[in-house]
Amino acid sequence: MRELVDLIKKSGKVLPGNVLKVDSFLNHQVNPVLMQHCGEELARRFKDSGVTRVWTVESSGIAPALMTALALGVPMIFARKHKSLTLTDDLYTADVYSYTKRVTNHISIAKRFVQSDDKILLVDDFLANGQAVSGMMEIAKQAGVQVVGAGIVIEKSFQPGGHNLRKAGVRVESLAKVKSLADGKVSFEEEKA
Amino acid sequence: MRELVDLIKKSGKVLPGNVLKVDSFLNHQVNPVLMQHCGEELARRFKDSGVTRVWTVESSGIAPALMTALALGVPMIFARKHKSLTLTDDLYTADVYSYTKRVTNHISIAKRFVQSDDKILLVDDFLANGQAVSGMMEIAKQAGVQVVGAGIVIEKSFQPGGHNLRKAGVRVESLAKVKSLADGKVSFEEEKA
Repeated sequence: MRELVDLIKKSGKVLPGNVLKVDSFLNHQVNPVLMQHCGEELARRFKDSGVTRVWTVESSGIAPALMTALALGVPMIFARKHKSLTLTDDLYTADVYSYTKRVTNHISIAKRFVQSDDKILLVDDFLANGQAVSGMMEIAKQAGVQVVGAGIVIEKSFQPGGHNLRKAGVRVESLAKVKSLADGKVSFEEEKA
Repeated sequence: MRELVDLIKKSGKVLPGNVLKVDSFLNHQVNPVLMQHCGEELARRFKDSGVTRVWTVESSGIAPALMTALALGVPMIFARKHKSLTLTDDLYTADVYSYTKRVTNHISIAKRFVQSDDKILLVDDFLANGQAVSGMMEIAKQAGVQVVGAGIVIEKSFQPGGHNLRKAGVRVESLAKVKSLADGKVSFEEEKA
């Protein structure tokens, strides 16, 4: 998505450890119009998939997931992160390891908001190692519901998450694909028309 | 806001400890159309205040804050919660005590996203004891920026947050005001036309 790529070029900062900092418009300060456009574009790409619910993980996924759900006319659920979980009878849960923060979070979705005929679109701000998406896929598997794909704002395609998901047969749509952050420079994969 | 009050009556659940559970449309599963309407209504109420940025605290405040910022045509910032903070040179920080979770979180906003002539609208999903709003006001004070008011989705007016803020001269606009959760029943204050 041209608008997004231009904004990453203009305002993204590369930090040591392959970190792309986009907190001026995506995950601290948020540009609502950009989020609306991202949501509309993800909705356009999945419009024929019969999506019944959008899932994401708090916190940075909420803005793009909300706008995607609005454009698709379906509810959004954000999975909660916990350091530990005790009472889990009413919850589907999975573990998500964060490489950047080096902690394992448990994520959960309340069982009563999952229907057996749900068709889930997973949305997140970043796809790098794929841990958050895999955690949500694990929950979908426990719940026996179909995942129609993953809609991502920024994919770091030099990290294995996107490749592994596609190899496993998951449809992954990313609005910007960063192929390298080498030498402090952001390079993108060619965008298909 | 009639639509919101009706939804609370229909889907809200009262739990022990004066907890109003609205996770079917506000803070776990989220109704995007309702959020859009809440954002438009808060934007309408503050349209003459010259708002330059909407602030909230992750995670449940993000959806209504994003929609309010979209309707006002300004950026949104969600303050980050941390258990502890070490490096804080680039951050404004404040402490927020959560009565429901019984923990103190530190919240932070990056200094580079705050301008001296900012006029801030604080948005949150709930106002009960007012800790989150007070934490954001503390950050605004440190930064020397003006807070034009607080826009709240659900105020529990039997708890002291709203009263204390108004007494301190803060304009508080709440889309639904719950005056009691006694006997497991949700009662609302009369809505002004």
